[in-house]
Amino acid sequence: MGVLETSGDTVILVMEVVGTVAFALSGVMAGARARLDWLGVVVLAVVVSVGGGTLRDLILDVPIDWLTESWPLLLAAAVAVVAIPVVERVGGDLDSRAHVLVADAAGLAAFAVVGADVALDQGVAAWAAAVLGVVTGVGGGVIRDLLVRRRPAVLSGQIYALAALAGTSLYVLLLEVDVEPLVATWLGVLTILAVRLAAIHWD
Amino acid sequence: MGVLETSGDTVILVMEVVGTVAFALSGVMAGARARLDWLGVVVLAVVVSVGGGTLRDLILDVPIDWLTESWPLLLAAAVAVVAIPVVERVGGDLDSRAHVLVADAAGLAAFAVVGADVALDQGVAAWAAAVLGVVTGVGGGVIRDLLVRRRPAVLSGQIYALAALAGTSLYVLLLEVDVEPLVATWLGVLTILAVRLAAIHWD
Amino acid sequence: MGVLETSGDTVILVMEVVGTVAFALSGVMAGARARLDWLGVVVLAVVVSVGGGTLRDLILDVPIDWLTESWPLLLAAAVAVVAIPVVERVGGDLDSRAHVLVADAAGLAAFAVVGADVALDQGVAAWAAAVLGVVTGVGGGVIRDLLVRRRPAVLSGQIYALAALAGTSLYVLLLEVDVEPLVATWLGVLTILAVRLAAIHWD
Repeated sequence: MGVLETSGDTVILVMEVVGTVAFALSGVMAGARARLDWLGVVVLAVVVSVGGGTLRDLILDVPIDWLTESWPLLLAAAVAVVAIPVVERVGGDLDSRAHVLVADAAGLAAFAVVGADVALDQGVAAWAAAVLGVVTGVGGGVIRDLLVRRRPAVLSGQIYALAALAGTSLYVLLLEVDVEPLVATWLGVLTILAVRLAAIHWD
Repeated sequence: MGVLETSGDTVILVMEVVGTVAFALSGVMAGARARLDWLGVVVLAVVVSVGGGTLRDLILDVPIDWLTESWPLLLAAAVAVVAIPVVERVGGDLDSRAHVLVADAAGLAAFAVVGADVALDQGVAAWAAAVLGVVTGVGGGVIRDLLVRRRPAVLSGQIYALAALAGTSLYVLLLEVDVEPLVATWLGVLTILAVRLAAIHWD
Repeated sequence: MGVLETSGDTVILVMEVVGTVAFALSGVMAGARARLDWLGVVVLAVVVSVGGGTLRDLILDVPIDWLTESWPLLLAAAVAVVAIPVVERVGGDLDSRAHVLVADAAGLAAFAVVGADVALDQGVAAWAAAVLGVVTGVGGGVIRDLLVRRRPAVLSGQIYALAALAGTSLYVLLLEVDVEPLVATWLGVLTILAVRLAAIHWD
């Protein structure tokens, strides 16, 4: 993803950055709720940010991306260091479950589509790429919720894995019928984001 | 496993189906106990079904089986969709810990022997194949229990990992002395099942 | 690591043994605190001992070390079998959180440096080797704490991941400037151990 050849690659890179920042924020807020101190919060933010992609790369048997590029780890740690004092200041207002879930929705949407894209690049079947997108999107959040010992959001009963599957399936389908990658990416991401935000709103 | 060459391959495929169905059921019942709604239960059933095999394939560094064949994911999801209304109807009667453990025992027995078989196919040492069978058999249940935040069955103090190890060791040993694969598979599976059911009964 | 070519390899092997024993002990004590019975404790001890290295080998995409060598599994199981009656006898005195953390500190220090060394052998960048050392060191303890359902030590707020990162970074840096591997290993290990023991003492 480091080399930007097409607009498709650029938008995927943008989505990686968005997902990394969003999951790092969800980790910071979940860590604050769990009363971790700041070192623990930084660790949590980094693990949540890279967790889903690591799982995806292990399953695809491709090199883990943060082993070859340093920016994901550094970006997640930097987001945590900047966000921790902000979250602490706004305190009781910010650290509720809903805020974690909104940041999580952004990360889920971005990473699910990135994950499907990486899987397609490896030549897996379209349906398997859609499933791997879901794994990429939900992986970080599952790890986060296990570590702070809360019920994983993916089991929460809100439309979660299904939202991710809808978005990655749409993305994969649109690419199959030769829609512009840029358009397919945005439609996939916005589908997931819209479904998740609606689910959080009406929960 | 998709191509059926010998009776040994057929019985291993049968065991994969049995294990997938049994672990999906254990996931459905564990999800019902944890008061998940049906989307969460389907996700849990699928993850529990493919979890042990995924761990095995990662450790063996072979392609993850559900990436190349779609039936394990589809079967687990279908079992969940069919089982959820049944489990809900029988309600308080069915969703006790014992029912989860009986379904788990069937899945453990089937997957442990399948796991040892897959490992032997990759040329690992006999003792390592027996251990990898245990990992395959217990993996899904550990993931299930972590996700619904219960004490993992493998740590429950009942004879669990040891039952799996007895069965996979027997299976590997019988193949070493050229017993028919069909016979070795059944003896391995029945050993695990018998020990687990006895342990559950006398607990 | 099986072949001892230089004093560097020997000291790394010694560290693997130390880490295996220390994490097995931490698993035994954590299992005793969680009131597991002895079969569960043995399983926990083995999983904690090999967990970090397994994670490292998966991420590096190298053969999992306990698949090719039997001693790590056997040693961890043997330590558990010997330690269980001792821990049970001393009972309420030994099984406190602090004792788990002291054993954990020894395992963390040993495995973190081993992990960085294995990663360097695979030709990853120095900073990535330092990070993988941290993953190797903290992995077993995270798995242990998840399985006995306690807050993971790495999130506890004590200097934990940072202690490991300080030690692995020092180790990698010393090797870069051609310090003797033996000296680099000991300085890395002692750095982690000193920081962790200080953190536990002043917590």
